[in-house]
Amino acid sequence: MSYTLAELASLTASQLNDEAFKDLVIEAVAPVQTAGNGDISFFADPKYKKHLSQCQASAVIINQELAQGYQSAALINKNPYATYARVAALLTPPEMPAAQIHPTAVVAESATIGSGCFIGPNSVIEADAVIADDCYLAAGVYIGRASRVGQSSRINANVSVYHHCVIGERNIIHSSAVIGADGFGFANDAGEWVKVPQTGGVQLGDDVEVGASTTIDRGAIDDTVIGNGVKLDNQIQIAHNVRIGDHTAIAGCSGVAGSAVIGKHCTIAGMCTIVGHIELTDNVHITAMSLITKSIKKPGSYSSGTAFEETTSWRKNSVRFKQLDVISRRLQQLENKF
Amino acid sequence: MSYTLAELASLTASQLNDEAFKDLVIEAVAPVQTAGNGDISFFADPKYKKHLSQCQASAVIINQELAQGYQSAALINKNPYATYARVAALLTPPEMPAAQIHPTAVVAESATIGSGCFIGPNSVIEADAVIADDCYLAAGVYIGRASRVGQSSRINANVSVYHHCVIGERNIIHSSAVIGADGFGFANDAGEWVKVPQTGGVQLGDDVEVGASTTIDRGAIDDTVIGNGVKLDNQIQIAHNVRIGDHTAIAGCSGVAGSAVIGKHCTIAGMCTIVGHIELTDNVHITAMSLITKSIKKPGSYSSGTAFEETTSWRKNSVRFKQLDVISRRLQQLENKF
Amino acid sequence: MSYTLAELASLTASQLNDEAFKDLVIEAVAPVQTAGNGDISFFADPKYKKHLSQCQASAVIINQELAQGYQSAALINKNPYATYARVAALLTPPEMPAAQIHPTAVVAESATIGSGCFIGPNSVIEADAVIADDCYLAAGVYIGRASRVGQSSRINANVSVYHHCVIGERNIIHSSAVIGADGFGFANDAGEWVKVPQTGGVQLGDDVEVGASTTIDRGAIDDTVIGNGVKLDNQIQIAHNVRIGDHTAIAGCSGVAGSAVIGKHCTIAGMCTIVGHIELTDNVHITAMSLITKSIKKPGSYSSGTAFEETTSWRKNSVRFKQLDVISRRLQQLENKF
Repeated sequence: MSYTLAELASLTASQLNDEAFKDLVIEAVAPVQTAGNGDISFFADPKYKKHLSQCQASAVIINQELAQGYQSAALINKNPYATYARVAALLTPPEMPAAQIHPTAVVAESATIGSGCFIGPNSVIEADAVIADDCYLAAGVYIGRASRVGQSSRINANVSVYHHCVIGERNIIHSSAVIGADGFGFANDAGEWVKVPQTGGVQLGDDVEVGASTTIDRGAIDDTVIGNGVKLDNQIQIAHNVRIGDHTAIAGCSGVAGSAVIGKHCTIAGMCTIVGHIELTDNVHITAMSLITKSIKKPGSYSSGTAFEETTSWRKNSVRFKQLDVISRRLQQLENKF
Repeated sequence: MSYTLAELASLTASQLNDEAFKDLVIEAVAPVQTAGNGDISFFADPKYKKHLSQCQASAVIINQELAQGYQSAALINKNPYATYARVAALLTPPEMPAAQIHPTAVVAESATIGSGCFIGPNSVIEADAVIADDCYLAAGVYIGRASRVGQSSRINANVSVYHHCVIGERNIIHSSAVIGADGFGFANDAGEWVKVPQTGGVQLGDDVEVGASTTIDRGAIDDTVIGNGVKLDNQIQIAHNVRIGDHTAIAGCSGVAGSAVIGKHCTIAGMCTIVGHIELTDNVHITAMSLITKSIKKPGSYSSGTAFEETTSWRKNSVRFKQLDVISRRLQQLENKF
Repeated sequence: MSYTLAELASLTASQLNDEAFKDLVIEAVAPVQTAGNGDISFFADPKYKKHLSQCQASAVIINQELAQGYQSAALINKNPYATYARVAALLTPPEMPAAQIHPTAVVAESATIGSGCFIGPNSVIEADAVIADDCYLAAGVYIGRASRVGQSSRINANVSVYHHCVIGERNIIHSSAVIGADGFGFANDAGEWVKVPQTGGVQLGDDVEVGASTTIDRGAIDDTVIGNGVKLDNQIQIAHNVRIGDHTAIAGCSGVAGSAVIGKHCTIAGMCTIVGHIELTDNVHITAMSLITKSIKKPGSYSSGTAFEETTSWRKNSVRFKQLDVISRRLQQLENKF
């Protein structure tokens, strides 16, 4: 794949710094340090300005400020990183094999496969499932009964989608992800657990990305619902009946417990735990490894945990933590004596 | 599926509030708010009594207390939630395709497949494996050499069971789960790791449920043992030689390190860590995201971690944590001065 | 498999305590408590010396100190545990079926399969992939386009390797692991996320073990790089562009965020979080469930978190944590009054 700089400007709503560069051919994105002829790099941070003049890329993506006085070829955009993302997508489009239902795929008679789809080796599409146009299912993908996959979605190898789930358009689901397994619902009866059938489904909006080995459980009665543009990293657990608002992003290893509601445009860092039946409003940000135990009604950044230190001193401090309430009371008593 | 209310009463050891309702036909479970004709809902909590009279379900499942003066159709049971679970299981039984070894399944000659089994597409059953009667293996399931799956167990798509593992009766194993991978055993020799062959297996009791993407490692020499009725949520890691007692439930993302022993009827919330070589007695409950570093001999509820707060204040407090031992000593000195 | 004690001594660079035992035949490793005729056990810890005389194994592996005055058959080595590991590997070698490309495997014409390989049922090898000699791919394994698997590597059922990844020699990859899924890279543009194509790959060194359901993402531009002899337990997340030094071991459920660099010979316990863009030097050790938020330049052991306690007292202490900075200032004020 290659584009002229003028084509890239047009396709990303950017400007050329000089029309003289319009026919320059760009073939690849590359890191600033190693870029060479035919490459394009980006600079998003003004503090790297000093490296700009040394960059050997054929062109760079920069903002108006960095472009001041810059003489070599540049695409100018107020968001260089997003522009880089779009340029990289043009230069390195995801692979799309020729449309085919591979002879080893097992497709139920009542399933519907749209035009332009690649249904890879050993994939299994159960009865009444619908795969919309232009989807890519790599290999060993399982789509359960009556589930639907929206147009232009890409499902990587060994993904499992249970029955009656809905995957939106332009989704990307990574390997070993599981959509629609039973929620963890059990009624305790005299010490033993009685399984509560999980009769709801899962709905993923459009433009959702689900990381490798991430699991999204089906709802107990109603559905689990993931909004448009939500991005989930690897190893995330989304429990039954969770609702996640549009354009929220969650980093790896985090877990969201049952019936929690997360707003729009939130970011949740890695290894966080959101307990069940609470609600986070829009624009809430949670730092790494935090435990959120109550609803958050005010946008902002929240955290829990302790700073790390050498284990020898940590041992002492972590034990003192168990005396913290007593320490506080003792301090109060001392203060009262004054 | 549909049942009369009298049939449901009989099958769940419940009572009708009025024999006049015995022939009423129930076809589905539904949430209290949206239930309508043919539906059954449940009320477990007396505080929702006010909603009871407005519920449009054909019948409700309630306890004796809520049934006082209730005029519409009701199933009465002292445990409405467990009764709901049983009714839901009757009305929405898990799918069981007609018995078949799918032509694309690869079954070793020396493997034994019981009657009534559905061995789904692209499943692989290795030599000397035994699948008991009435099992369901969805698709892409791998059962290693000489492993056994007990009667009426359901194994979902893309589950991997290594060699010489035993899965009990009526188990449910969710997609991407892995049973019997090697435990994490290495001997350090001059800075390099020498793999310790993991020659034990895994034993799952009866009525065990294993969540999506949960991993249960095989033992180093002896087996890893999961008791009857144990329920494991998604993304859980059970290390080699762990033993978990009957009817214990563990929520998503928790990890149990090697040779830890967990008692019966315990509950461990999400994202907890149980370190290796410790023992938790029966009826221990651990709250979310706790780190348990020592044996617990007394039943009860245990926790670790800190409450969450805004990140700006958390930064100050989390750093102060590193001074906690010093703070405590300074307080002691002040007290001594009085 | 069986070996004489002399053969085992020779193969593990150990000594016999008495040449009279050289023809003794050893058939299995067994735990000290249950070992019997034909078995070999090991004692690494002098504190178990009292059990040594009662052990019924045909032979034991011990160090010079424990061997003093020991009359029965023994292999003597300064590292009994590593010697046990090597003896166990000799007596219980991993299974290697006869070389075969299973008829249900789907191998691209341009892929290269070395001699002695077992390519199991329903495995998929994409175009230009290279599988070196003597590899074992169990079943349902996916190897993406142009990826390479080094000699004598073992890849278990339902593993997914994306395109352009390199797996070294003698690797062991466990089920449901995912190598080379897209890193979690998105540029925010007016509140929506624009995917940043992940154009780098993954490189695993030689003698790497990757646990079940562990995920190692491909790099954003450059590669994610795992050194020689690195051991990763189950359920670990390694983000894009992470670099891990040789012979480092990471326990289950830990996560390493993007572009973090971890040195050689480190150990990271279970459920730890290493944030992105930091660097841990060689020989750093992290205890369970710690959050590491800054670079560590000094070898040693580090920790975060709090000790666990009963939930009732924990609730009080965890709330007091939020007052810790204030408590510290109040204490300072009191001290100032003296």
